[in-house]
Amino acid sequence: MDAIGSIGVVETRQWCFAEPPDELKLRSGASIGPVDVAYETYGELTPERDNAVLICHALSGDAHVAGRHSPDDPKAGWWDVMIGPGKGIDTDRYFVICSNCIGGCKGSTGPSSINPATGRPYGLDFPMVTMQDMVKVQHALVKEHLGVDRLLCVTGGSMGGMQVLQWAIDYPEMVVSAIPIATTSRLSAQGIAFDEVGRQAIYGDPDWNNGDYHDGTPPARGLGVARMVGHITYLSDRSMREKFGRGLQDREEVGYDFGPPDFQVESYLRYKGDSFVARFDANSYLYITKAMDYFDLEADYGSLVNAFSGVRGRFLVISYTGDWLFPTYQSKEIVRALQANGVVTTFCELASDYGHDAFLLEDEQLAQVIREFLRHQQRSVREQRA
Amino acid sequence: MDAIGSIGVVETRQWCFAEPPDELKLRSGASIGPVDVAYETYGELTPERDNAVLICHALSGDAHVAGRHSPDDPKAGWWDVMIGPGKGIDTDRYFVICSNCIGGCKGSTGPSSINPATGRPYGLDFPMVTMQDMVKVQHALVKEHLGVDRLLCVTGGSMGGMQVLQWAIDYPEMVVSAIPIATTSRLSAQGIAFDEVGRQAIYGDPDWNNGDYHDGTPPARGLGVARMVGHITYLSDRSMREKFGRGLQDREEVGYDFGPPDFQVESYLRYKGDSFVARFDANSYLYITKAMDYFDLEADYGSLVNAFSGVRGRFLVISYTGDWLFPTYQSKEIVRALQANGVVTTFCELASDYGHDAFLLEDEQLAQVIREFLRHQQRSVREQRA
Repeated sequence: MDAIGSIGVVETRQWCFAEPPDELKLRSGASIGPVDVAYETYGELTPERDNAVLICHALSGDAHVAGRHSPDDPKAGWWDVMIGPGKGIDTDRYFVICSNCIGGCKGSTGPSSINPATGRPYGLDFPMVTMQDMVKVQHALVKEHLGVDRLLCVTGGSMGGMQVLQWAIDYPEMVVSAIPIATTSRLSAQGIAFDEVGRQAIYGDPDWNNGDYHDGTPPARGLGVARMVGHITYLSDRSMREKFGRGLQDREEVGYDFGPPDFQVESYLRYKGDSFVARFDANSYLYITKAMDYFDLEADYGSLVNAFSGVRGRFLVISYTGDWLFPTYQSKEIVRALQANGVVTTFCELASDYGHDAFLLEDEQLAQVIREFLRHQQRSVREQRA
Repeated sequence: MDAIGSIGVVETRQWCFAEPPDELKLRSGASIGPVDVAYETYGELTPERDNAVLICHALSGDAHVAGRHSPDDPKAGWWDVMIGPGKGIDTDRYFVICSNCIGGCKGSTGPSSINPATGRPYGLDFPMVTMQDMVKVQHALVKEHLGVDRLLCVTGGSMGGMQVLQWAIDYPEMVVSAIPIATTSRLSAQGIAFDEVGRQAIYGDPDWNNGDYHDGTPPARGLGVARMVGHITYLSDRSMREKFGRGLQDREEVGYDFGPPDFQVESYLRYKGDSFVARFDANSYLYITKAMDYFDLEADYGSLVNAFSGVRGRFLVISYTGDWLFPTYQSKEIVRALQANGVVTTFCELASDYGHDAFLLEDEQLAQVIREFLRHQQRSVREQRA
């Protein structure tokens, strides 16, 4: 029996590729280089190199998926509940890899990176990136830099799940198994609409200055509003009712004014907006939401069944009952298209009131299904070799 | 059999009350006067004055609920599908009244009205108003100005439904029957959260200028974003999928840029935001959303059962299956509390994919249940008198 604990102190590393004269060719037709990739790894790669698990992060995530950056770091990685010794993705068994996506702002090349052509941050001169581009960069990291030819599993939730699907399509020979969580094969009209509201809030902030704000004040108000609306979509009516209800914020009765928040939920959202502004770049928010909006496997391949026609790995598809942003019917569409291609697919709808964010919370249900699935994949791989 | 048609050309009228030295006392403790009320009436009041139906409008509504303001007016009133000769609320039978709420910007006194103390628009010097205050003003209009002592019915959806409930509580002797539609006895945490996002978008627009923008540019960007997010909550995932899906806007493929909208749903939302800005006042948006947030019958009366303890009229409570902003469970809470008080209550959940806005659309289901309910009330009143 493994002890369940933290992976401990970890560090983010950097890898640079597509250096001149090379460039990374993007789906839009544009090219970019050099490309920095921030990544973390935990656990040990076996001599057979058969235990690597790649984690793909969601909109606001980064390479720091588990552990802490120093012994007194108050905040663990974004999926520390899932990754560590004895946890759902057990670092005593697996070699875990996670990298910040291209277009992001946590160490990988994105719109706040320095444009070598000008010596200043790219801003809107940064080319548009897609899920395919994000996955292409991860592929280079995994194969060229880490020397891993096969991934025991690729997993991630939300936008991370989109990357999982793209991985299985673009590099089928490398993906032994895949666990897309709370995701979709194409963002819904409602999802695009919420993204567009966030972008309009940023565009409307004069500090945004058409993306050129690096010498001035970043567009904090706009990015804060974008995060607030996003955050509501990650929760659910029920979870908000149970967490906040109509509780008042440090007051006995409503204020009849537009000053401090009347309700706890307002205070919470303002806090979420403010804290996001301190850690995230507004232009990255624009680029990454566009990449999510553009994701559409049906359109790219004619149909979802076609999209998965070359997939070889096994799938565990997971959705949550309380997720209204990426509802279960979207996961079921993925399952049906995989099964139509004869892909061995397990579907698991987990009961939760927590909305889309459920996969990020401590959840023994999720840890258990992932743990069992991974062990099964590992046994299969070893049996095949034996 | 009545012919179904338009009420034709109608006009908005004005009534002014609470003139000096009188003032309207508000729930917050503040007072205000004089108070202008914009209202419309259609149909004829019977000599017995027993056929008046009061319509209460939602957030962005006004007194102009049916008909057109000129023969070539391209746009009919906001509930023209429901009100007119032979329609669900038949103007050949009923005397229909609708007024713009206090705090609004369509002819009734609100933050864009002139403050008599300064000769300039109130802006944030306008006092906070509540549902009770809105209803108090309607009551004065109906009783003092129109000379109507009993309302055959009070009806309205969304915020209008909140007013319906408040009417039945505050003036039980006047309310023969009530039809609250797609509403709640207290706004949910999620509802408050969406309202707060809209307010933050307005606060964050430098043109808002702390509510003092009447000599300058109104905060169009902020109000536009507020409307966009609100509009998403009035639709549903399914209705957006069916109406827009992932259809592109005047283009063959996505633009890989932040210019014109890629998707139809983005174009639609931008249009909705822009057109709202042209017709609505940002400060009114702030005041009215606060009034909705503050609405909480449980808190005001100790419990919802207590709140309805003096209610005398009959109720028809209506919700929609596709409404996730004011979901059916909230209507059921109202029904249970009414029934606990022995109030004769009919509950009707209508099937619709259209989300919260369903009650505003052409819908023969809704027209039919309202038509039958009103006829029944009218028969009862006349039988009692006979």
